[in-house]
Amino acid sequence: MAPASGRLADTTALPPGTLVHVGRLRAETTRVAILDYDAEHLREVNDPDQAQIVEFAGHPSVTWVRVEGLHDIDLVACLGQAFGLHPLVQEDIVNTSQRPKVEDYGEYLYLVLRAVLWDEDDQDWRSEQISLILGPHYVLSFQESHHPLFEPIAQRIRNLKSRHRRSGPDYLAYSLIDAVVDCYFPALEVMGDRCEGLEDELLTRPTPESLKELHRLRGLGLLLRKSGWPLREVVGALERRGFELFQDSTRIYLRDAYDHVVQVMDAVDNYREMLAGMLDLYLSSISNRLNEVMKVLTIIATIFMPLSFLAGVYGMNFEFMPELKWPWGYPAALLLMACVAGGMLFYFHRKKWL
Amino acid sequence: MAPASGRLADTTALPPGTLVHVGRLRAETTRVAILDYDAEHLREVNDPDQAQIVEFAGHPSVTWVRVEGLHDIDLVACLGQAFGLHPLVQEDIVNTSQRPKVEDYGEYLYLVLRAVLWDEDDQDWRSEQISLILGPHYVLSFQESHHPLFEPIAQRIRNLKSRHRRSGPDYLAYSLIDAVVDCYFPALEVMGDRCEGLEDELLTRPTPESLKELHRLRGLGLLLRKSGWPLREVVGALERRGFELFQDSTRIYLRDAYDHVVQVMDAVDNYREMLAGMLDLYLSSISNRLNEVMKVLTIIATIFMPLSFLAGVYGMNFEFMPELKWPWGYPAALLLMACVAGGMLFYFHRKKWL
Amino acid sequence: MAPASGRLADTTALPPGTLVHVGRLRAETTRVAILDYDAEHLREVNDPDQAQIVEFAGHPSVTWVRVEGLHDIDLVACLGQAFGLHPLVQEDIVNTSQRPKVEDYGEYLYLVLRAVLWDEDDQDWRSEQISLILGPHYVLSFQESHHPLFEPIAQRIRNLKSRHRRSGPDYLAYSLIDAVVDCYFPALEVMGDRCEGLEDELLTRPTPESLKELHRLRGLGLLLRKSGWPLREVVGALERRGFELFQDSTRIYLRDAYDHVVQVMDAVDNYREMLAGMLDLYLSSISNRLNEVMKVLTIIATIFMPLSFLAGVYGMNFEFMPELKWPWGYPAALLLMACVAGGMLFYFHRKKWL
Amino acid sequence: MAPASGRLADTTALPPGTLVHVGRLRAETTRVAILDYDAEHLREVNDPDQAQIVEFAGHPSVTWVRVEGLHDIDLVACLGQAFGLHPLVQEDIVNTSQRPKVEDYGEYLYLVLRAVLWDEDDQDWRSEQISLILGPHYVLSFQESHHPLFEPIAQRIRNLKSRHRRSGPDYLAYSLIDAVVDCYFPALEVMGDRCEGLEDELLTRPTPESLKELHRLRGLGLLLRKSGWPLREVVGALERRGFELFQDSTRIYLRDAYDHVVQVMDAVDNYREMLAGMLDLYLSSISNRLNEVMKVLTIIATIFMPLSFLAGVYGMNFEFMPELKWPWGYPAALLLMACVAGGMLFYFHRKKWL
Amino acid sequence: MAPASGRLADTTALPPGTLVHVGRLRAETTRVAILDYDAEHLREVNDPDQAQIVEFAGHPSVTWVRVEGLHDIDLVACLGQAFGLHPLVQEDIVNTSQRPKVEDYGEYLYLVLRAVLWDEDDQDWRSEQISLILGPHYVLSFQESHHPLFEPIAQRIRNLKSRHRRSGPDYLAYSLIDAVVDCYFPALEVMGDRCEGLEDELLTRPTPESLKELHRLRGLGLLLRKSGWPLREVVGALERRGFELFQDSTRIYLRDAYDHVVQVMDAVDNYREMLAGMLDLYLSSISNRLNEVMKVLTIIATIFMPLSFLAGVYGMNFEFMPELKWPWGYPAALLLMACVAGGMLFYFHRKKWL
Repeated sequence: MAPASGRLADTTALPPGTLVHVGRLRAETTRVAILDYDAEHLREVNDPDQAQIVEFAGHPSVTWVRVEGLHDIDLVACLGQAFGLHPLVQEDIVNTSQRPKVEDYGEYLYLVLRAVLWDEDDQDWRSEQISLILGPHYVLSFQESHHPLFEPIAQRIRNLKSRHRRSGPDYLAYSLIDAVVDCYFPALEVMGDRCEGLEDELLTRPTPESLKELHRLRGLGLLLRKSGWPLREVVGALERRGFELFQDSTRIYLRDAYDHVVQVMDAVDNYREMLAGMLDLYLSSISNRLNEVMKVLTIIATIFMPLSFLAGVYGMNFEFMPELKWPWGYPAALLLMACVAGGMLFYFHRKKWL
Repeated sequence: MAPASGRLADTTALPPGTLVHVGRLRAETTRVAILDYDAEHLREVNDPDQAQIVEFAGHPSVTWVRVEGLHDIDLVACLGQAFGLHPLVQEDIVNTSQRPKVEDYGEYLYLVLRAVLWDEDDQDWRSEQISLILGPHYVLSFQESHHPLFEPIAQRIRNLKSRHRRSGPDYLAYSLIDAVVDCYFPALEVMGDRCEGLEDELLTRPTPESLKELHRLRGLGLLLRKSGWPLREVVGALERRGFELFQDSTRIYLRDAYDHVVQVMDAVDNYREMLAGMLDLYLSSISNRLNEVMKVLTIIATIFMPLSFLAGVYGMNFEFMPELKWPWGYPAALLLMACVAGGMLFYFHRKKWL
Repeated sequence: MAPASGRLADTTALPPGTLVHVGRLRAETTRVAILDYDAEHLREVNDPDQAQIVEFAGHPSVTWVRVEGLHDIDLVACLGQAFGLHPLVQEDIVNTSQRPKVEDYGEYLYLVLRAVLWDEDDQDWRSEQISLILGPHYVLSFQESHHPLFEPIAQRIRNLKSRHRRSGPDYLAYSLIDAVVDCYFPALEVMGDRCEGLEDELLTRPTPESLKELHRLRGLGLLLRKSGWPLREVVGALERRGFELFQDSTRIYLRDAYDHVVQVMDAVDNYREMLAGMLDLYLSSISNRLNEVMKVLTIIATIFMPLSFLAGVYGMNFEFMPELKWPWGYPAALLLMACVAGGMLFYFHRKKWL
Repeated sequence: MAPASGRLADTTALPPGTLVHVGRLRAETTRVAILDYDAEHLREVNDPDQAQIVEFAGHPSVTWVRVEGLHDIDLVACLGQAFGLHPLVQEDIVNTSQRPKVEDYGEYLYLVLRAVLWDEDDQDWRSEQISLILGPHYVLSFQESHHPLFEPIAQRIRNLKSRHRRSGPDYLAYSLIDAVVDCYFPALEVMGDRCEGLEDELLTRPTPESLKELHRLRGLGLLLRKSGWPLREVVGALERRGFELFQDSTRIYLRDAYDHVVQVMDAVDNYREMLAGMLDLYLSSISNRLNEVMKVLTIIATIFMPLSFLAGVYGMNFEFMPELKWPWGYPAALLLMACVAGGMLFYFHRKKWL
Repeated sequence: MAPASGRLADTTALPPGTLVHVGRLRAETTRVAILDYDAEHLREVNDPDQAQIVEFAGHPSVTWVRVEGLHDIDLVACLGQAFGLHPLVQEDIVNTSQRPKVEDYGEYLYLVLRAVLWDEDDQDWRSEQISLILGPHYVLSFQESHHPLFEPIAQRIRNLKSRHRRSGPDYLAYSLIDAVVDCYFPALEVMGDRCEGLEDELLTRPTPESLKELHRLRGLGLLLRKSGWPLREVVGALERRGFELFQDSTRIYLRDAYDHVVQVMDAVDNYREMLAGMLDLYLSSISNRLNEVMKVLTIIATIFMPLSFLAGVYGMNFEFMPELKWPWGYPAALLLMACVAGGMLFYFHRKKWL
């Protein structure tokens, strides 16, 4: 079990604040989209250059910088400089093994969240790190892949009548948090459906395949719990601790988001407990089947062993075996065998083995 | 395990405050019943139109609006407008996957409770969401189905001498909460009866059927716990946190309701622990049975294998086998077999296998 | 699993404060005994009429009303009126499914405790609800059966020199609480004795009977814990929360009672953990036994199957089998069989199966 | 499971403060040793009479009264009178089923600790109750047996240069507490050694004997935890709660003792978890062995059953069996059998059973 | 289970503050390296004599004394005198069985940490005690072995532009703590890799070897948890409790280190839960295999036992067995056998055993 060289462990010897992208590459290219809006105006810029970023950083209207893909260290450093982010924050943004947390840097709030998304390539669920920076008039969002998680929110902002246009960056931050929380529901539903199907299967006809399914569901439950529990803490802290960057009118929406995440975690714990019960069920079913198989074997063996023995006795070649000479010897032997078999069956019947 | 399209997950892309009914349809039609009363007068209106609702919303006497069935979005929106409910409250009322909670909106309290009821159609227990709104002179109650849960309370209100007629809407709200808590007792009793019966069954004659019963009882325990734990928190918060809408004279009744729900949860935890013990019992019983079966098989095999071997030896066709010619060969062989069988039985007896 | 009609669930539709006796009938008749005493005088009245009760309720000397049997609703109502008890208190006294708790009604304290007693009729341990009311100059005690739990205290009060005669009703209440705590010790001792005996039995010669004993002990442990944990909370609250009805000089005795109940719960948890360990032990023993049985079967089968096969080969009726004609064929076949058997035994010996 | 008469339960009917020795008799005789010292003088008295005890109780120098054996009720009562101990303290000293605790009686502190010692007579570890009374200028220590637990401390006091001679009774009390904590280490070391040995044994050659060893180690772990957890609370309370009888200079030593007891409990929990893992290991090993045995049986049976059947077929006595007449019939039959056996072996090989 | 004489337990009789090295000897020689630096100057001294140590202790520039190897008691005593360390601190430094903790001695902070390192000699992971003393202008670090854990930090200090040169000893102390936290990541990665590999192995082809691997991984998980949990408490206390020796500018870095250690412990708990799930998986797989083996045995036995019996019947030597004389007797018997075998196979097919 010697330690392997390479990867995450290698970054540990670097001084704090060094920008190194840690994690799998989820996006081929890094995309940046800026949405700058107030009640009346809306401006969209895709893949801005450095000068544009600095310009938007100074705008008094609400600016949302949406970054997809985290391996472009220079871009993050450029954003960090334009918006005045602490080096440790920049380091955490590109290190995708963060735990959900909220940190108050006075001028801005730094939030790490984790979404649970379906990965089409791996054909499996995965956890993706979402970093949010909420400043006095801007929101920066960083995600690992191009998953269209925040697209519906961009759509709503483009609508002149949406609540976003009348609200500050705190309402936008709430919407992004809510979108992250909502992305747990599809995974939950898959889990719920599979759990119920599996339960029926285990009660009626368990197979080794059920065990693998059970194991996969436990893995999904663990993933949801690992990402969701600290997310719950983060959203709860936002609602309770009264950060100044969130206005009171947004607080009630945060409570709603908190309710959702509590509901998610309740359901996850519930499914996990159901899965634990199902493993017991599976093992009991296997035991029962083994028992049934053993009973069949025992009954067959117990009936035919004495019969074969009797046949063996009358197959012996002794010269003086008077029974062999009797005309009714053969039918009598068969009758004896039938009696033995019948007695056995009666005994098993009384023992409730049949 | 790809996510399915459709259902709950689909609503997550909607802006907050959008009214969408989420959950199974429990009632064909939506029924609304209004009871408006004070110490002397009583007025009942069923299925009121919008004007009547607005009229009652302005009445200073205690008004109880009882809604059964939640899929009529327009009705909820109409009530929401008449009584000035926040859009998030309206959204939660029709989304029946809420967790029990209490939220103070200043002018009114919003309570989500969950009842555990017997569903005649499914022939199974289910959890139903009950929403209560307690305002300064009104109570709104929303339930998913037409279950006559609150009917006894309506009866008591119709009685001129009942405590209700002399009390405010807070006492009515308490009565409704108490009715929800009380509806756990039938499920608890079923659980208690089944647990005891199952325990006897498992100790004397366990069957695979017992395992399914055990599993069903665990499911019921999980349902009770999932609905009951947050309900306990809610009722406890009502008693302790001193919401202004509850008068001090009603507080002592809330303590009584809290005692009941604590009692329910204690019993549920107790039964759950008993059920966990029973699974161990079942598995031990199965092991014991397997052991017993294996012993029978082993005894039979161990006795008859040597005997059959002896019979086989004297059934060999060698020309020079002197025993076969002896006059007493056959009885001697039978005697030898009897000795071997007897020796085996004696050995098993000493090993305490018989 | 449809709900049964009848019993506890039926009382849930009644308005709060309605007196209904809930629980098994533990006593044929209801007995009331009044002890009224101060440092010099002592008066005893059994089964007093209503006038006497009212008279004692007004006495300034310490009055202990001891009620055994709870189905006489009228008596409880009469006491309730004489001593000014809240309807909810009266309801809780006769509903014997209460959880231990302490409630401060200002003028008096209402305590619910649970004793664990040996039931001679059922030949099993049961939990009995004890209600205590501590007022400024009286103590009311209610128990379900005629168990002489409080008799030693009555004896001590009759002794002119006892501490009771020089103390107020709070010391009497402490004594009654202490008596309830002490009644856990006999059950604990039974549990301790059985646990040790069972442990020896499981390590040397486990039987299915041991499993049932183990299950019974787990049931007793659950009963003790269910009754004892909230009792511990109640006694702890009495010591810490400083109710005015308890004088400071009595507080140190309450701490002593609290020590006892903590000791009881420690021991209960200890035994419960021992029992959990024993189940593992039992299952391991069963597995071991099964293993041993299987080894015997395998050895027998593995030795005799090849031998029987050889015998079968030489029992074939082919005309041209040269071995059958050899004079040494038979001894050679026997020798071959002995070699096969010997080889098998040597193999098993090396595998450490023998 | 009826309650036995006799023993601890019998003392429950006595009034509080009655001195009764509860517990096993650990020492034949009761020994009392008094050490009275200050920076310059030292006086030792063994088995003092009542007058001497009263005299020392008044001395201003540090007096350590060391009592070994607790069944001499009169002695405890005499000490109680001389040093002014509360009757409940005296009762607790002689009742050896106390849980570790600390009680502040104003003039003196009463400490109950539990040591874990090796009992030469029982050849097993046991828990012994140690009571300490720390007064303004005296320390009383009570232990059940003559175990030389405190002897090294007496030796150090006799040394004129030791820190004890320059310190007050609080430093002596600390030393005694530290000695009690230190006596857990030998048991811990035994546990550590056995755990490692057992782990190796279970991975390579598990026997039913390993199971018993495992069970004994779990018992020792339970004993250590049961005694150690409340001890940890007590030492922690001494460090944190700032009792006046402990000077600030001694406080830092109490922190050291607390570190030790935390270290002990960490190790105990660690070993307990290792033992839990080992039981799983044992059960898995047993399952594996059973599996291996079953495979051998199945292979043997599966090979020889078809062979014996073939031999049986050619042992049938039909008159018209053409094969029996063929000159190559016998070799052909043997070849057929070899083919069947070889096919079976090939099948098992492909199934990876060989 | 008698206690062994020798080792740790022997030191328990010594007075507190006695310096005794406890633990395995990890380093042949003790090395001391002093780095004394400020923004402009840097001085390095290896293996200084006592006079040099005293000189550096008085320097106002930042002094880092790095000690590798703890068995040189005199050296620790000499450092203790030069920097004024409490005897209990010196005792704890050389006793390598400490639990991570932080102690504030006013003038300096004493930290005990535990690193998890790969031991090349044992080819296993081990936990190493790291002691840090943070004074107003010095840091002392003590480690058991020559592991180059702190070498990267020394390198960075030698760089004139590093942040270290502009910061005080608190930033150096933070760097050392961070280095200790970072050394958990390689062990975590090994654990993660092995867990995934093992999971695949258990689902496809479990072997007894997998069980040993599983056990080793559980051991590593236990080691990480045992060392990491108190480390987490220590780093958390440093961040929250605001020790004066840490400046505010360093506090934000401590929060970063705390995030890392929380992340480590989350991952450890996650892996531990995965491993627990894998044991269930392994046991289920073993059960499944046993079941499969039993089914093969049962099918073989169930088919051939009746066939052999039939062959035995027609091998009997009765004189009057008419079937034996029939010309079609033999083919008829073979047909009968084929029918029996076919019927059995059909039955098993319907039972889904094939």
